[in-house]
Amino acid sequence: MQKKNKGRIYLVPTPLIEGEINTIPEMNRLIVASCRYFLVESFKTGRRHIRAMVPAFDLDSAVLEQLDKSTPVEDLENLIEPVFQGHDICVLSDAGCPGIADPGSRLVQLAHHKNIEIIPLSGPSSITLALMASGYNGQQFTFHGYLSRNKSELKIELRKIEQMANYATQIFMETPYRNLSLFNQLTAFLSPNVQLCIACDLTSANSLVKSQTISQWKKQTAPNIHKRPCIFLITK
Amino acid sequence: MQKKNKGRIYLVPTPLIEGEINTIPEMNRLIVASCRYFLVESFKTGRRHIRAMVPAFDLDSAVLEQLDKSTPVEDLENLIEPVFQGHDICVLSDAGCPGIADPGSRLVQLAHHKNIEIIPLSGPSSITLALMASGYNGQQFTFHGYLSRNKSELKIELRKIEQMANYATQIFMETPYRNLSLFNQLTAFLSPNVQLCIACDLTSANSLVKSQTISQWKKQTAPNIHKRPCIFLITK
Repeated sequence: MQKKNKGRIYLVPTPLIEGEINTIPEMNRLIVASCRYFLVESFKTGRRHIRAMVPAFDLDSAVLEQLDKSTPVEDLENLIEPVFQGHDICVLSDAGCPGIADPGSRLVQLAHHKNIEIIPLSGPSSITLALMASGYNGQQFTFHGYLSRNKSELKIELRKIEQMANYATQIFMETPYRNLSLFNQLTAFLSPNVQLCIACDLTSANSLVKSQTISQWKKQTAPNIHKRPCIFLITK
Repeated sequence: MQKKNKGRIYLVPTPLIEGEINTIPEMNRLIVASCRYFLVESFKTGRRHIRAMVPAFDLDSAVLEQLDKSTPVEDLENLIEPVFQGHDICVLSDAGCPGIADPGSRLVQLAHHKNIEIIPLSGPSSITLALMASGYNGQQFTFHGYLSRNKSELKIELRKIEQMANYATQIFMETPYRNLSLFNQLTAFLSPNVQLCIACDLTSANSLVKSQTISQWKKQTAPNIHKRPCIFLITK
C-alpha cells in the first residue's frame, strides 16, 4: 500500500485593511488558490479574504473551520486531520499574521509535535510596520500585547516599561475603542522626556505615524485614534 | 511662488533570498517603479533588488545612495534632501525590513523630526516569520538582536533570557558562520526542559523550522545551520 505524503500547514497573513490585496505577495495568492482546507479566525472575514486574494475561488469546494482564541485544545487534533490525508491547510487570521497577537500558535505547537511541516508566508504585520515607521531601536525590542486595564496596575506596568525602554523599544496595543483612554494614561504616567510613537491604520491611505516626546504630545490635542487600530511604541 | 509638496519616505522590504520576488507585494513593486531616489544598504544588492522587483526599471535614470550602519549621522540630512524637492525616497536593506535588525531607523528618526511622512510597506521579516512558525507565544515576545560573543558574558545573558522565557518568547540571531557555535553554547548553558526553535533559510524551498526541548536537541546530531541565516527562539 502506498503511503500518502503528509500535507503542510501554511500560515497566511491577511490584509490589515480588508480588501487591500496589493499588500499581499503573489506567493500567498498562489498557495490559497491551490488549497481546499482553511482554518479561519472568523468565517465571514475568512471567506472575504479568500475571495479577495483569489477572485475565481470556488468557496463551495473548500472546507473552512474556525480557529480562534476560544477553540478548545482538544479540537486542534481534529482541525489538523486533513494533513494526514495528504492535504495542505492554510491558516488565516482576521488581519495580519497568524500566531502573532492573533490565534494560531497552539495549532502550530501541535503541528511541531506531530512532525508536520510549517510554512510561514510573508505579509502585513502591524507590529513590524509600526516598528519600522517609528524610527526607534529595531535591534532590541519587546512586544507586550495588551497592558492592564486596571489603573493602578497599569501605572506599575508603565513604570517597568519605562525602565526597559532604556535598552529596547517597548511595543503594545489596545482594543481600538480604548485607545484614547490608554493615550491619556500614557501622557499622565510616563516621564516628559520619554518618546512615544503612535502608529495607526497602517497600510491605509489615512495612516498616521507620529513619534515625539510625552511633553510634546501633551502640548497638543489628543490624536485622532478613537476606534482606529493602533500600535504604541516607547523608547528613551 | 508655488510651494512644492514634500516627498515621502517609503520603507521597502526586500526578499530574504535574493530574487524571490513572489514574497513581495504588488504595492511595493508599483512604488519602486515610480521612484527615482533610493537609499540602499549596498549598491550591488540594491540594484539587483530593484531590477528583480521591476524588470523594466531604468537604473541609469535613478539616484542610488548608500545607507548602512556606518553612515555618519551628519550625512543623513543630505540623504533626505530630495524629499524637500518633492521627490519620494525608497529605503531598501539587503534583506528583509529596513530598520528592523537592519539599517534605517536613524534616518526615519530624522524624518520624523523634519515632519516627513514615513510609509512602511509590508513584506518579509525573518523575525516575524520565525515567530509565526515557532508555535511559541506571539502575544509577548522580545528580540535581542545579537547576543554576546564572550563565553562567560553569554552564559550570564542566557541565564537572564531563560528567566524571561517564562513570560515571553525570547528571540535572537547570530552571524551565519557562528550559528553552530551558538547552538553548542545554547545546548550547554540552557536547562534541559527549555524549548528552543531554530528557524533557518525562511522563505526558501530548503527552509528548516524545528521546535523542541534542549534535551531533545542534545540527543540528535547538530542541525544543518552552518552559514545559513537563522533565527533562534526560546520559550518555557
